[in-house]
Amino acid sequence: MTDTAAFEPPLEKAAQDETDQFRPKFDANGLVTCVVTDAATGTLLMVAHMNAEALRKTVETRIAHYFSRSRNALWRKGDTSGTVQTVEEMHVDCDQDAVWIKVRVAGSGASCHTGRTSCFYRSVPLGDGAGSSGLVFDDAPASGEN
Amino acid sequence: MTDTAAFEPPLEKAAQDETDQFRPKFDANGLVTCVVTDAATGTLLMVAHMNAEALRKTVETRIAHYFSRSRNALWRKGDTSGTVQTVEEMHVDCDQDAVWIKVRVAGSGASCHTGRTSCFYRSVPLGDGAGSSGLVFDDAPASGEN
Repeated sequence: MTDTAAFEPPLEKAAQDETDQFRPKFDANGLVTCVVTDAATGTLLMVAHMNAEALRKTVETRIAHYFSRSRNALWRKGDTSGTVQTVEEMHVDCDQDAVWIKVRVAGSGASCHTGRTSCFYRSVPLGDGAGSSGLVFDDAPASGEN
Repeated sequence: MTDTAAFEPPLEKAAQDETDQFRPKFDANGLVTCVVTDAATGTLLMVAHMNAEALRKTVETRIAHYFSRSRNALWRKGDTSGTVQTVEEMHVDCDQDAVWIKVRVAGSGASCHTGRTSCFYRSVPLGDGAGSSGLVFDDAPASGEN
């Protein structure tokens, strides 16, 4: 069910950095990392993964598709929750093993399955002895499943 | 050389989402994903990986440490290039398999090894038939190795 054939294979190091061809570098599990930010606010919403099929469908339809590692299945975000993500921009990094998409989120606006806008709702204290400090919640507790 | 013992193991699904304890969820290779943005501008600079040692050192010293998968070694960013990253904030996502750090970059200010500020210097065209379009460079060609 993979369709890596939809993409050309990566080039050697420096050539990959400077090519104008989209040649995503899938890992051993056939995935690239996807960083998702809010197109309007710039907020980091989530980090997810895409296989070749998810990446191709996202590019073609402008609707974010991911690959769920826990369910081992293609996942059109928002299919059950209504929080569909429309992709305004996609960028790729130097070695093309990560993409960044800027999205508009429909429905409740939540991107986290806990019901929060962002998956990154807790801060990690830094500095000597910080290891024993607890995380700090930056967003309220879950409002429901998404 | 791993020190996963520095961290408590992850909890079960919902408990992991709501705990105030930092319990990073390392993958099969002992890594978490790290999203790095500029603390001042919000720009997405790079995506990297941290093993337990890199994560612990980053938290304790506030200087970004990563694990280089290509070199299979701990990597204190900027050691050779001078582009040391000082961490102003760290956040962790719902299942704690990804962290987000906001950094100030020293030296040339480059976070990409190509010499560019960000690794995400190319855009991917979207929509039907976009697959045959080339990437668009958003930043100038490499100014040198970093």
